[in-house]
Amino acid sequence: MAEQQNQTVAAASKGMRIVIVGSGFGGMAAAKALKRAEAEITLVDRTNHHLFQPLLYQVATAALSPADIASASRAMLRHQSNISVLMAEVVRVDVESRIVHLAGGRDLPYDYLVLATGSAYSFFGHDEWARDALTLKSLADALTIRERLLGAFEKAEECGDPRLIAKLMTFVVVGAGPTGVELAGTIAELARSTLARDFKAIDTRSARIILCEAGDRVLSAFPKRLSDYAAKALASLGVELRLNAAVGEIDDEGLMIGEARIETSTVLWCAGTEARPAARWIGAEAARNGAVRVGGDCAVIGRPEIFVVGDAANMDDGSGGVLPGLAPVAKQQGAYVGKLLQARLAGRPAPGPFRYRNYGEMAIIGRSRAIADFGLFTLTGFPAWLAWSLVHLMLLIDFRSRTAVYINWSWAWFTYGRGARLLAGATRRGRSMSDD
Amino acid sequence: MAEQQNQTVAAASKGMRIVIVGSGFGGMAAAKALKRAEAEITLVDRTNHHLFQPLLYQVATAALSPADIASASRAMLRHQSNISVLMAEVVRVDVESRIVHLAGGRDLPYDYLVLATGSAYSFFGHDEWARDALTLKSLADALTIRERLLGAFEKAEECGDPRLIAKLMTFVVVGAGPTGVELAGTIAELARSTLARDFKAIDTRSARIILCEAGDRVLSAFPKRLSDYAAKALASLGVELRLNAAVGEIDDEGLMIGEARIETSTVLWCAGTEARPAARWIGAEAARNGAVRVGGDCAVIGRPEIFVVGDAANMDDGSGGVLPGLAPVAKQQGAYVGKLLQARLAGRPAPGPFRYRNYGEMAIIGRSRAIADFGLFTLTGFPAWLAWSLVHLMLLIDFRSRTAVYINWSWAWFTYGRGARLLAGATRRGRSMSDD
Repeated sequence: MAEQQNQTVAAASKGMRIVIVGSGFGGMAAAKALKRAEAEITLVDRTNHHLFQPLLYQVATAALSPADIASASRAMLRHQSNISVLMAEVVRVDVESRIVHLAGGRDLPYDYLVLATGSAYSFFGHDEWARDALTLKSLADALTIRERLLGAFEKAEECGDPRLIAKLMTFVVVGAGPTGVELAGTIAELARSTLARDFKAIDTRSARIILCEAGDRVLSAFPKRLSDYAAKALASLGVELRLNAAVGEIDDEGLMIGEARIETSTVLWCAGTEARPAARWIGAEAARNGAVRVGGDCAVIGRPEIFVVGDAANMDDGSGGVLPGLAPVAKQQGAYVGKLLQARLAGRPAPGPFRYRNYGEMAIIGRSRAIADFGLFTLTGFPAWLAWSLVHLMLLIDFRSRTAVYINWSWAWFTYGRGARLLAGATRRGRSMSDD
Repeated sequence: MAEQQNQTVAAASKGMRIVIVGSGFGGMAAAKALKRAEAEITLVDRTNHHLFQPLLYQVATAALSPADIASASRAMLRHQSNISVLMAEVVRVDVESRIVHLAGGRDLPYDYLVLATGSAYSFFGHDEWARDALTLKSLADALTIRERLLGAFEKAEECGDPRLIAKLMTFVVVGAGPTGVELAGTIAELARSTLARDFKAIDTRSARIILCEAGDRVLSAFPKRLSDYAAKALASLGVELRLNAAVGEIDDEGLMIGEARIETSTVLWCAGTEARPAARWIGAEAARNGAVRVGGDCAVIGRPEIFVVGDAANMDDGSGGVLPGLAPVAKQQGAYVGKLLQARLAGRPAPGPFRYRNYGEMAIIGRSRAIADFGLFTLTGFPAWLAWSLVHLMLLIDFRSRTAVYINWSWAWFTYGRGARLLAGATRRGRSMSDD
């Protein structure tokens, strides 16, 4: 009886259409977990690639090339004949007719929808700051930051005006979470070591790197002891740390930190994030940061055919809080939803509710400086850096990336050199100072 | 007596200022050859890097990353304490006062000036074609072409409109010199092999690659037998070759080839080049393509303190013709001028007139297809490809690039894969279809 019912379900599911929006960790994990699903799956993303976001700051700071940390999505899913990959923009979702509408007029009907749309940086109501503060979410963002960082030193070398030099060589990072700390630490290393021997008119070692944090410690998701280590490590790299510091009035000449005006041409915004489009598309209940509230099966309450995973989802962590917006959470949720759907389509019993397995958290501050929290024990300094490097190498998506990253890293480690120090003149904000 | 005179000259030359404009093969070779010159040398370029231009087509076709073929100029010259590197735009040269004027108002006085400003593609008086036809000279150009090529396939997969698909999957290359042949051959390989398994709605193997040439054979600088081989190799890759074909009326929907209109969204312009700014800056006599006529010592006639090298120079080849615009010519001329100036500043006798050493010419058509002309003998096919690969590997500027390129190549060779297949959404013509 049960078997007969299963067969019916399996037969009915043959023509099932699954649409996955987003090719980040969540969407890609869902797509891969649906490997054996008898369904027509479509993965839609605005870009053509899957991005290894934890290393994006290395592209922004000229240590790695885009191709080292990104792979074409359709190449990654080449061997899954049940999946089509589309590079397109979603404009809205019709939840009643179950249709995803794409820019350009094309429609994608679905039986199941998986939203893995991630998050974007938010400016706490000051959207005008987005004009002058740079954020780091996409490859285009990383290339823009790289262009601005390297361009600031080039311009300082060339301009001959002490006041302009001071402004160009002041870099302000807002928000001392993992991304802010990585960027501040790496920019300090770039200025103090990598570039130090290359400039003649300026001394890049005199660059100011200011890291502002509204809270009272850096990397506040980690135990206090690790935050304290990180603060010391940042100071030893020459980063000026400003805790309990509110920022305001960001323009293209500088910003306010507390009561003081700082002149700078580079503000990197790494403060709060929000998950905008998903909740709006499906008209679902959202948390304060815009993330869609989902049940234990990652499905939207009242919409069992719509799943939300990763940063776009707001899920109880079982102890009163919500799961954090981290790559492993997105990956595990995506894989969970993929397996759940595959089981459902095959008429097999669905798995129990999602459970996040926390294998530990790490943050890197710079060359041989990192922190790691594995629950049972913590690491700092070189051991943590080694753990961080090994884990991130292993996580990297395919062999090719692994090899290239490994070589670039080894090379940078031994030489303090940067292979990707290029100003191609192709930035998000138009051409800057470059070629025909 | 002669010794005394030499010492006087050497003493007088201590404060000599040499300005080199352009960090391509010519300018970089000049800078390096001036290693031991007692002078204040400034190398100015609009970009911050030296580019290994012979492999630029591989960036444009997603085989290599920008960092694989470019190095930061100031890093390359780090150990030469007599050189400053400036990233700046030259706006004009005052030849009477001997001053190079930079954008932004800064001046560079010189005693000797070396112009290595290269060449740009020219549209034979149809500058409006530059709006829609893409050229390949800089890293930014290569990234734009990569974005357009990959974007055309993505758009074709997504659009569902047969006529638009046909237009998107038609690629027209104008000019069958080395760059045109490389691009046409590599795009054909990309469509027929690399991408073939990745798309579902379209068959990338049905893409049309049309190579137009106004003359009666491809690669006309080579012996006829090699041209014939190249034409056959192109045909076997699926390139449609149109000889004696004039093109006209290029717009964003297509172009005219002879009497026929071809609908295409991608026109790559690899026809004539011209050397614009140098002659204009110094008011010197120029050849038809704008190159400055120089004497046997690379100096401008009547301006012994100004040297022009590489594509920007027009020099007799000693047998009635002029030296071609090739990387080895630029490199040898740059090194020659550097040595000449170093000798002059040291009060040593200057070398005799420049003599180009032709070590052979090569052109690559695709995977294991190339031609090579070494004067005494010629090669085609795999042996030529092997020679091409070895020579280009050896020529690559520093160890790091060499390693990364070697790995990318080996990997691409075994897998037909492309590591750099990324649409970052950061193109010369603004953001296209990408992230926040």
